[in-house]
Amino acid sequence: MSTTRVQSVAVLWQMWSRKNSVTSLSSRAFSTSLMNPSTSILMSPSPMSLDCPNLWTSGSVQPDCSSIQKYTCKHVAQILNGKAIAEEIRSGIALEVKRMKESIGQVPGLAVILVGQRRESQTYVRNKKIGSEEVGIKFMLTTLSDNCTENEVCNALQSYNENPSVHGTILQLPLPRHLDEGKILGLLTLEKDVDGFHPVNIGNLAMLGREPLFIPCTAKGCIELLLRSGIEIMGKKAVVIGKSNVVGLPTSLLLQRHHATVTIIHPHTKNPDKIAREADILITAAGVPNLVCRSWLKPGAIVVDVGTTPVEDPKCEHGYRLIGDVCFEEASKVASAITPVPGGVGPMTVAMLLYNTLQSAKLSFKFT
Amino acid sequence: MSTTRVQSVAVLWQMWSRKNSVTSLSSRAFSTSLMNPSTSILMSPSPMSLDCPNLWTSGSVQPDCSSIQKYTCKHVAQILNGKAIAEEIRSGIALEVKRMKESIGQVPGLAVILVGQRRESQTYVRNKKIGSEEVGIKFMLTTLSDNCTENEVCNALQSYNENPSVHGTILQLPLPRHLDEGKILGLLTLEKDVDGFHPVNIGNLAMLGREPLFIPCTAKGCIELLLRSGIEIMGKKAVVIGKSNVVGLPTSLLLQRHHATVTIIHPHTKNPDKIAREADILITAAGVPNLVCRSWLKPGAIVVDVGTTPVEDPKCEHGYRLIGDVCFEEASKVASAITPVPGGVGPMTVAMLLYNTLQSAKLSFKFT
Repeated sequence: MSTTRVQSVAVLWQMWSRKNSVTSLSSRAFSTSLMNPSTSILMSPSPMSLDCPNLWTSGSVQPDCSSIQKYTCKHVAQILNGKAIAEEIRSGIALEVKRMKESIGQVPGLAVILVGQRRESQTYVRNKKIGSEEVGIKFMLTTLSDNCTENEVCNALQSYNENPSVHGTILQLPLPRHLDEGKILGLLTLEKDVDGFHPVNIGNLAMLGREPLFIPCTAKGCIELLLRSGIEIMGKKAVVIGKSNVVGLPTSLLLQRHHATVTIIHPHTKNPDKIAREADILITAAGVPNLVCRSWLKPGAIVVDVGTTPVEDPKCEHGYRLIGDVCFEEASKVASAITPVPGGVGPMTVAMLLYNTLQSAKLSFKFT
Repeated sequence: MSTTRVQSVAVLWQMWSRKNSVTSLSSRAFSTSLMNPSTSILMSPSPMSLDCPNLWTSGSVQPDCSSIQKYTCKHVAQILNGKAIAEEIRSGIALEVKRMKESIGQVPGLAVILVGQRRESQTYVRNKKIGSEEVGIKFMLTTLSDNCTENEVCNALQSYNENPSVHGTILQLPLPRHLDEGKILGLLTLEKDVDGFHPVNIGNLAMLGREPLFIPCTAKGCIELLLRSGIEIMGKKAVVIGKSNVVGLPTSLLLQRHHATVTIIHPHTKNPDKIAREADILITAAGVPNLVCRSWLKPGAIVVDVGTTPVEDPKCEHGYRLIGDVCFEEASKVASAITPVPGGVGPMTVAMLLYNTLQSAKLSFKFT
């Protein structure tokens, strides 16, 4: 191919990119949700406010967006302290719950259904309980035995559906194998789906121009962590390890709404290390300890570790501790920023759950 | 890092991949939909039959799956003749419609709402009409003017929702800008969403373990074209250019359900040519003529061109012709297989729409 031809293709791409530039984003949406983060609890903008109108069509108008805030990646090694950021967010939520209680005499309510004795699930539920009570959200728990019937789970869910003091209901996953997760989750009222796992919420998270009622908490927690840490997402190569409904899928969809170039690695991926090494932002949720080592990382990459595998440790309070997917020691010598496990994404997930529950209660009470 | 350590990570990956291998796929599902393609109209398996149960969990059982059919890529230049394959599929549909008519005296019905005078939209609708009538599907059309009200479109949609002889309703996109596409599409009965654009269908397409009622026609058409051409998808690096709700998004989601490693390129992607050049399977739906030239392709890549941009051509019947995103001449010297425009994905899309409409009618009449 001649040099002229190569240039002309480059020019074509530039024109196409410019045409669809985020300069065409609604500056109003940005000014509410990004420019004045101090006025809202989260920095994360709504997915729809990120959309580029008239994507791929010609002749789209390019409004002035010189006011759009740019996030820049700090090129020094940095620990992404999810624990501290989550604490800040929880403080904001606590203030809002207090204001709600003082104004209308109501508080948000969060209900959890826990089936079986799975140790990590018990830890997660405990964290949700502590988190809720700390910010003034009423917490309700139904525990069912490992060998309970599908009917028992459905009945518990239905009763929370009908309970007006419940604004968010969670079915703690995974369920024992004899229970049909999809069927049970399908019974959950959309308005109380604070985990964001209903197909309507996932569909609206995926689709341009649509707004999910709730965004899955871990995905939202990862993005909020990046935004609060000053890390730019738009245009970055993001690689997500894992395509689970709970973490990998929604995280990849949300990154896409933020205009990252996303690749998902899964167990059928060939040369996963090579693909991971291309990532500016690597989010791993495989649940395989030490899967991601130094050779999987591009120097300067941002590493977000969602993996939490329990390993026996009699020194710990509950006889075990959680470890991530990333070899933290060696990765922190290569990455420009990295989340620890614990204290990284975990607390952010809980904070987002509390945030979603607050939002649900606000909608329900028409409280602004 | 020492050699031993590198090896141990490689071993870890192999174990992880094996644990989640598609060897754990339900062989029953495969035997119905893949092993005996002659008994069904399409080769495409249902997304759920592709799922790996207990993904990412340990100790998953690995049933015998030595019977799973393997698709192998033919390493010779090949034109993916969508026109011929679509004709074959339409013949199968025609036989089924005939059998339905003879058995229960009913035929499937497809309704289209066309707003405005957009030339390409008129062509697409014309193709759907011709395709429907050819296979015996009853075709209904409502045309509305460019400046019609949202109410008029909603009323047309509602009337098709209530019409028992309509099994599929399509709102021809794009709509004029003054109409709220999301709001109007939200009114469409899920059971008649043969375009598969309802958030519930997109959500269920995205989520592991879920089955959408209908899969968007272009996405399904691309996959069917690959499968019928003997091209393996699992484990391949697939790059989709474009993330539109209509093509890019559902195609990437469906490729993911087929266990490809998927990356989406969009206008904010940096070095798109470099990313495209990594693709074993490149599906482009940017709507930008000649965007994808030789330098964007890995030798031996499979190229599927969904782009259709109208260019003036007085020699053509309607005064214009459609051209794709790919420089066909030079790409066909590098790719191992390529779709032409026209005659590639276009006819497959129409065939999938007729297929979805037939399936909808079968469900409605409980006809098996």
